[in-house]
Amino acid sequence: MRQMPPAHPFDDDKLKEECGIFGIIGVADAANFVALGLHALQHRGQEAGGIVAHDPEQGFNSVRRFGYVRDNFTSAKVMEALPGPIAIGHVRYSTAGSKGQTAMRDVQPFFGEFSMGGAAIAHNGNITNAEALRRELIERGSIFQSSSDSECIIHLMARSLQRDIPERMEDALRRVEGAFSVVAMTANQLIGVRDPLGVRPLVLGRLGEAWVLASETCALDIIGAEFQREIEPGEMVVIDESGVESRHPFRARRPRFCIFEHVYFSRPDSILGGRSVYETREAIGRELAKEAPVEADIVCPVPDSGTPAAIGYSLESGIPYAMGIIRNQYMGRTFIEPTEQIRNMGVRLKLNVNRALIRGKRVILVDDSVVRGTTSRKIKEMILDAGAKEVHFRIASPPTAWPCFYGVDTPQREKLLAATMTEEEMRDHLAVDSLKFISLDGLYRAVGEAQGRDNACPQYCDACFSGDYPVEPADMIEKGFRLKTAAE
Amino acid sequence: MRQMPPAHPFDDDKLKEECGIFGIIGVADAANFVALGLHALQHRGQEAGGIVAHDPEQGFNSVRRFGYVRDNFTSAKVMEALPGPIAIGHVRYSTAGSKGQTAMRDVQPFFGEFSMGGAAIAHNGNITNAEALRRELIERGSIFQSSSDSECIIHLMARSLQRDIPERMEDALRRVEGAFSVVAMTANQLIGVRDPLGVRPLVLGRLGEAWVLASETCALDIIGAEFQREIEPGEMVVIDESGVESRHPFRARRPRFCIFEHVYFSRPDSILGGRSVYETREAIGRELAKEAPVEADIVCPVPDSGTPAAIGYSLESGIPYAMGIIRNQYMGRTFIEPTEQIRNMGVRLKLNVNRALIRGKRVILVDDSVVRGTTSRKIKEMILDAGAKEVHFRIASPPTAWPCFYGVDTPQREKLLAATMTEEEMRDHLAVDSLKFISLDGLYRAVGEAQGRDNACPQYCDACFSGDYPVEPADMIEKGFRLKTAAE
Amino acid sequence: MRQMPPAHPFDDDKLKEECGIFGIIGVADAANFVALGLHALQHRGQEAGGIVAHDPEQGFNSVRRFGYVRDNFTSAKVMEALPGPIAIGHVRYSTAGSKGQTAMRDVQPFFGEFSMGGAAIAHNGNITNAEALRRELIERGSIFQSSSDSECIIHLMARSLQRDIPERMEDALRRVEGAFSVVAMTANQLIGVRDPLGVRPLVLGRLGEAWVLASETCALDIIGAEFQREIEPGEMVVIDESGVESRHPFRARRPRFCIFEHVYFSRPDSILGGRSVYETREAIGRELAKEAPVEADIVCPVPDSGTPAAIGYSLESGIPYAMGIIRNQYMGRTFIEPTEQIRNMGVRLKLNVNRALIRGKRVILVDDSVVRGTTSRKIKEMILDAGAKEVHFRIASPPTAWPCFYGVDTPQREKLLAATMTEEEMRDHLAVDSLKFISLDGLYRAVGEAQGRDNACPQYCDACFSGDYPVEPADMIEKGFRLKTAAE
Amino acid sequence: MRQMPPAHPFDDDKLKEECGIFGIIGVADAANFVALGLHALQHRGQEAGGIVAHDPEQGFNSVRRFGYVRDNFTSAKVMEALPGPIAIGHVRYSTAGSKGQTAMRDVQPFFGEFSMGGAAIAHNGNITNAEALRRELIERGSIFQSSSDSECIIHLMARSLQRDIPERMEDALRRVEGAFSVVAMTANQLIGVRDPLGVRPLVLGRLGEAWVLASETCALDIIGAEFQREIEPGEMVVIDESGVESRHPFRARRPRFCIFEHVYFSRPDSILGGRSVYETREAIGRELAKEAPVEADIVCPVPDSGTPAAIGYSLESGIPYAMGIIRNQYMGRTFIEPTEQIRNMGVRLKLNVNRALIRGKRVILVDDSVVRGTTSRKIKEMILDAGAKEVHFRIASPPTAWPCFYGVDTPQREKLLAATMTEEEMRDHLAVDSLKFISLDGLYRAVGEAQGRDNACPQYCDACFSGDYPVEPADMIEKGFRLKTAAE
Repeated sequence: MRQMPPAHPFDDDKLKEECGIFGIIGVADAANFVALGLHALQHRGQEAGGIVAHDPEQGFNSVRRFGYVRDNFTSAKVMEALPGPIAIGHVRYSTAGSKGQTAMRDVQPFFGEFSMGGAAIAHNGNITNAEALRRELIERGSIFQSSSDSECIIHLMARSLQRDIPERMEDALRRVEGAFSVVAMTANQLIGVRDPLGVRPLVLGRLGEAWVLASETCALDIIGAEFQREIEPGEMVVIDESGVESRHPFRARRPRFCIFEHVYFSRPDSILGGRSVYETREAIGRELAKEAPVEADIVCPVPDSGTPAAIGYSLESGIPYAMGIIRNQYMGRTFIEPTEQIRNMGVRLKLNVNRALIRGKRVILVDDSVVRGTTSRKIKEMILDAGAKEVHFRIASPPTAWPCFYGVDTPQREKLLAATMTEEEMRDHLAVDSLKFISLDGLYRAVGEAQGRDNACPQYCDACFSGDYPVEPADMIEKGFRLKTAAE
Repeated sequence: MRQMPPAHPFDDDKLKEECGIFGIIGVADAANFVALGLHALQHRGQEAGGIVAHDPEQGFNSVRRFGYVRDNFTSAKVMEALPGPIAIGHVRYSTAGSKGQTAMRDVQPFFGEFSMGGAAIAHNGNITNAEALRRELIERGSIFQSSSDSECIIHLMARSLQRDIPERMEDALRRVEGAFSVVAMTANQLIGVRDPLGVRPLVLGRLGEAWVLASETCALDIIGAEFQREIEPGEMVVIDESGVESRHPFRARRPRFCIFEHVYFSRPDSILGGRSVYETREAIGRELAKEAPVEADIVCPVPDSGTPAAIGYSLESGIPYAMGIIRNQYMGRTFIEPTEQIRNMGVRLKLNVNRALIRGKRVILVDDSVVRGTTSRKIKEMILDAGAKEVHFRIASPPTAWPCFYGVDTPQREKLLAATMTEEEMRDHLAVDSLKFISLDGLYRAVGEAQGRDNACPQYCDACFSGDYPVEPADMIEKGFRLKTAAE
Repeated sequence: MRQMPPAHPFDDDKLKEECGIFGIIGVADAANFVALGLHALQHRGQEAGGIVAHDPEQGFNSVRRFGYVRDNFTSAKVMEALPGPIAIGHVRYSTAGSKGQTAMRDVQPFFGEFSMGGAAIAHNGNITNAEALRRELIERGSIFQSSSDSECIIHLMARSLQRDIPERMEDALRRVEGAFSVVAMTANQLIGVRDPLGVRPLVLGRLGEAWVLASETCALDIIGAEFQREIEPGEMVVIDESGVESRHPFRARRPRFCIFEHVYFSRPDSILGGRSVYETREAIGRELAKEAPVEADIVCPVPDSGTPAAIGYSLESGIPYAMGIIRNQYMGRTFIEPTEQIRNMGVRLKLNVNRALIRGKRVILVDDSVVRGTTSRKIKEMILDAGAKEVHFRIASPPTAWPCFYGVDTPQREKLLAATMTEEEMRDHLAVDSLKFISLDGLYRAVGEAQGRDNACPQYCDACFSGDYPVEPADMIEKGFRLKTAAE
Repeated sequence: MRQMPPAHPFDDDKLKEECGIFGIIGVADAANFVALGLHALQHRGQEAGGIVAHDPEQGFNSVRRFGYVRDNFTSAKVMEALPGPIAIGHVRYSTAGSKGQTAMRDVQPFFGEFSMGGAAIAHNGNITNAEALRRELIERGSIFQSSSDSECIIHLMARSLQRDIPERMEDALRRVEGAFSVVAMTANQLIGVRDPLGVRPLVLGRLGEAWVLASETCALDIIGAEFQREIEPGEMVVIDESGVESRHPFRARRPRFCIFEHVYFSRPDSILGGRSVYETREAIGRELAKEAPVEADIVCPVPDSGTPAAIGYSLESGIPYAMGIIRNQYMGRTFIEPTEQIRNMGVRLKLNVNRALIRGKRVILVDDSVVRGTTSRKIKEMILDAGAKEVHFRIASPPTAWPCFYGVDTPQREKLLAATMTEEEMRDHLAVDSLKFISLDGLYRAVGEAQGRDNACPQYCDACFSGDYPVEPADMIEKGFRLKTAAE
């Protein structure tokens, strides 16, 4: 029941964005629009989703479900239970708090009834001091219902002395450390906030008289809303029938947006920094072709996420682009594998090599990242097994050597291939003819920083590559995580 | 429950292959291999699937289910109910017989108990004289359990005077007209047959000591089996522990394989006629670029089936390839569309235009076919809405002007855009800057016939383009279907 | 999913009626009435049920489901799929043919399409020469879809040379041996038949202008229909808009109605032979009190089926009636029994002894029958464990020593306690203070035969007690069953 | 999904107990025993159930589900998720707080994590000042997750200044007014409490070394535990491995146990006040026969709850007992009732009159109570329709004229037949030959108070009959409920 077909063939060997959020105010049956928006954001979280809506007559209603938006929020029966002109929603992969599988009680949005009325919040990111906050709140008599870090926010709001909900939210978020983009609602307000560094994205859109908040612009497109602007790092917008009010409740800091959103998390048709993510990825591929050229017959993407960079590599290098690996569109649960013969064939359920095409060719394989390296190895074997003459891996991001603590599901550090091996060791480990990662400066150039990375004051959060964490991961350090030393 | 996420974003505006078949003999837990094979053939039928297996101790067992193979044939509980070293399976889209939705009793394989033992059959194709046969059999006392044309075969076998099952099958198939590839099994034999014209595909593979029959080679790849050869048109193979026996029960005729398998039905990684389907489609794109060149900035595929031809067009023309349309990987059920504003936005649930990329460009859109034209129109609107300067449609098949009666789900003739309009009228109807279909000769050249179509004696079944039906559709004519006249 | 809560606490130690049948003609939405009628007949079969209805516009429709009528045939969606003024239905326990669990294809009514139109049949009873008939029919080319003995009837009908369906049915039933009450329908006729011995019941009722056929009168009561008469043994009624036509297609024989319908199968509120079954059972209890008196403090029924006989025993003996055993109304699936301590407590899930009431008392326990004796033993232990001073078993039927082959699910002969033990040995085996069964003559007297059993020409089928089988069980004899010898 | 087959045929015209509670400590796999205990208590709440268990390794786990215990807590998969030697559980009908249907978040036990560890509580009863408490707690920053009155207890505990959980529970329960029997647990303690009046039952049992708490003794019987004693009104027991500690945290008051537990709520095989409930009900029937004799032919119970009183009436009066009304064992969902003819036949789905038995008789019908009177009327009609000569109703409780606010689901006062009519008016309304209720003194005598009711200081809570509320229903009065005036 809970096992969902993965979105990408190698989801189990990718970093995973943990959440997508969406909210709308000022339109009849707002929840229907939220369902559409969440569907467009499904790549940011496939495990579960929830919607809260408010109706003047029927008050707050919520539906939270495991599984895809398309399977849970499409029936008239479900959607009619969510009436009203204001609604927010959330899709999630897994929480910081849960060991293993998510419980239903961890599915957002969270809701709290305060003396001045109710509020619901949906959170993308991760609170790095959540465990300390939870201990403090329990000590004072709060009862937590979930294992989610995000629940702290609603309890902090419940205990705030402020008289209205947006002010209580400011109070609460000033106690919170880490990365957070939040969409919240009261009975008549839609609220959006980004943390001071702006690690996670959040955009503002307009649909006729209605206002929309969403993690990415592709969620505006699906409902036909017009992209207005990104919410600024450290900004809070409070939207009601009188319009959008902008506040800046936090001390100003230099922003550090997550660079991996460009590499993998965001959808290629979303717009980040004024350019489509597809174009940025094509530019990464071009940059990679310049940094790491090689003679070959064809350039093949590792489907589907390597495709734009492979096209860029082909365009820059002049080597023809071809689909050497075909993805099965009906991926899903694990099949029973009865004999040793096919025991390790898992990957074939997801894709197949175009044998007749590959045979005798020198192949450049372009992938977006290498995490544990398990899939890279299997793909290489399939390609060689089909008779390729040479295999050259080109990776559209630098080596992933550090875990993310800002809302991304990463393996423990010791499971990251690049945490324990040099590029050369990885090449040997994968046993390919060559293996090259784009440089960190090359990546910065491709995303538009002509001068590359400003090491004194980096323009992005690139902790997963550099180990340079812009917010101290307090809970993790308490649990024994060791930061990069000056020597490293 | 029964509403399945479509495989392709525009499935409702495509011709649809109706079945995939698979069988294996000589391996422990044969049904597990059948499940994997059917998973690889899922694109040939998404509505339902079934597996029959035979075990010396437990006899014949079957499981038939609505929905995807991955959802129905992956649990240990289900697969343990299908023990034994020989098994066959079937995936289907819909039957000739059913009005509207398929009933469970129409899900194949069909099984019959004869005096000399049981047999199960799985059929890909369509029997063009099925209704006449059914009337005759009922008159004699047969009781039909399904509305499927394929059930005739098993009743004809039950009434045959022959002493063994393969001979009864020969008897039965000699009474049958139309297109049929059949995989069948007895307690100790695996049988494969193609009709004399070889309209539908069927291939033979080997996995160690085991033998495999499958609609396409991609189903051999998934289990690691080696492709041996295609079953010949008019050939019957009877496989048991002593090996493969080849028979030719029908009067020999010149083969006419379905040319649309090259264009759309088969998977790009399958091999047809010694070449990967991907390469053939790329060649179609190249041919199309030669036949119908146009000045433009980018070549974009209509995802996903237009991709290989678009790559071919780009390679031949030198115009850069780009993904101007991004497919949503989580397509599924129909969402509730609350307001007029988004009433007709259906297509946005499935794909989104890469707005930032398309703006101001002259775009060539490559699609595999135009059936009703409804989707072509929506896509054109999306592209223009995103600010494209020009839109040029290039179609990788000739105009589809006639229905198929050989196992493909086609709209009635009057619904086919090309049945009522010239190319010029279609261009006006779609309101694009230009619209060009590949010529029938061009298509023949791309699939390897250097001289194009032999009009006196065509090398393929191309009835959907030409109206030239190699087998008279007797049931349909009785119902009023009018064949092409000499004048047309 | 398939495990249904049993109707009686000791269903697993009872003989089980295998079917209930119902049909109605001449009323709008006939299937709704069939659903109600089957609900009233649910005690005759809990495993599965089916309804076929015919509508002039939509033809024949059917729904067949595992589980209770109340769970399957109550939603508007299901019932709207069964339109029309004529319908029949069936509830079943298990078939003669199935080993173990019923497959969906064994769920009746069965349907066949003949050249003159379709027909559906529902059968209560068992065909004792079904296997020989099946072999013969397969030899001639019939394809069986189920393992049910009842399917023979529809194939025999398909092969009849007669021109109308009732005549084909006469043809078919003349080839059939055993016990059968049948309700059948064509597009405009409702048909009812009882075998020449009338082993299984079938009654005719009237509801306004509509006619009803049902296994028992309680199914007439639930829809407010008036009881007209029993269908006679050997009679066929063909009902259409012109009324009820009575035929007698079989050679006349002396009837032998199943005496166990009086003892246990029929509902106490049904009328058999002009008297309520409840009253007959009370009379059995009175007879038992006369035959087997004993001094005691209270008379307790084994719930629920022993209740009327216990009341009769109390009224005749003057010993107060009391509910010493309380049945749990929420019986259901098997619970997990974690420790040895409660491993064998199964029976407590179903009932509980009224400890405070039983303590120190001499208790007469009245049960309807002893089959394997497993439950009798457990109940005795519970009663003693609660502190009863004495336990006296009184059984409202003679010892069950022979299996039934006429539509009742009986254990194999060697599992029947009375097949291997005398009454005295059974008393020792159960370790009770006394154990008495009513005599066969006593039972005949209680059901109204003042002179007891006519051994030369018995008035009832009592094979389960006497071993005197009125129809030779041909299939079983072929499988090795040994009839009672003159010596026994 | 949520519509459950009712336990009693006329559940919709009965007062309904709202909860059953159970806990056990000191046995492996404690949750299995809780499941069995809840199954035995299912009559106290059919809508939903929950179990919390604690394991030293795996901590607290909980499962909460809608529907029957037998359907939810019997699979190995579910029960293995609830490991450990201590567990509590709850079955519920509906909460005070919910409007309409229960939400999953209202299903108990409730769990709270405090600084000294977690605790779970299950509550039977109703807190009469819950709304005032909730307002106060929200004002202070508590976030409520349910609409249940019981959740107040856990929040009061969270805010207590005490250092251990039992003391925090004392703190919390001293703020709470109303009726409550509570079973709670910490990681190593099982706790039981009854309110000072002891309105709801709670008993202590022993199973080997383990201790058990349960609403009724029948839940001890099912696991083979030995009944030790009732928890006293106002007592708290704290049980850990060192044994049972008894505390008395409340000011002592004269107990007032709910007299309706004797009449209807408790199971007949449970022991209350040293006698089986069955015997008490038989005694009520005898008392009723003395108070309200009438000449008649048979005494029939209204099944099933009227049965013991009917037996008592028969034994006292000498008029034969008979089952004139037969209950359908397969009651369930509402059927579709297509025509006016059977529109109002609802009751026939649940029971049927034994027509042959009733015809021409003078019938005494014994029922346990009359709430709205709707069913009494239907039953009377069925009996007359079957040809009874006279119908005399005898009711085993006084007229129900006031709602209960202590954990029982009662209609609003104006819906209670006895709130608006005298006994004579009710007789006319029901149109029966006679109608008599037992007197309040008669009822007290039957439950063992030889002198009847002590009006100065009543021995029981009988507010539903007398309007004399032992605890002021504060929330209800705030909402406008009017207490009985001196004049009434």
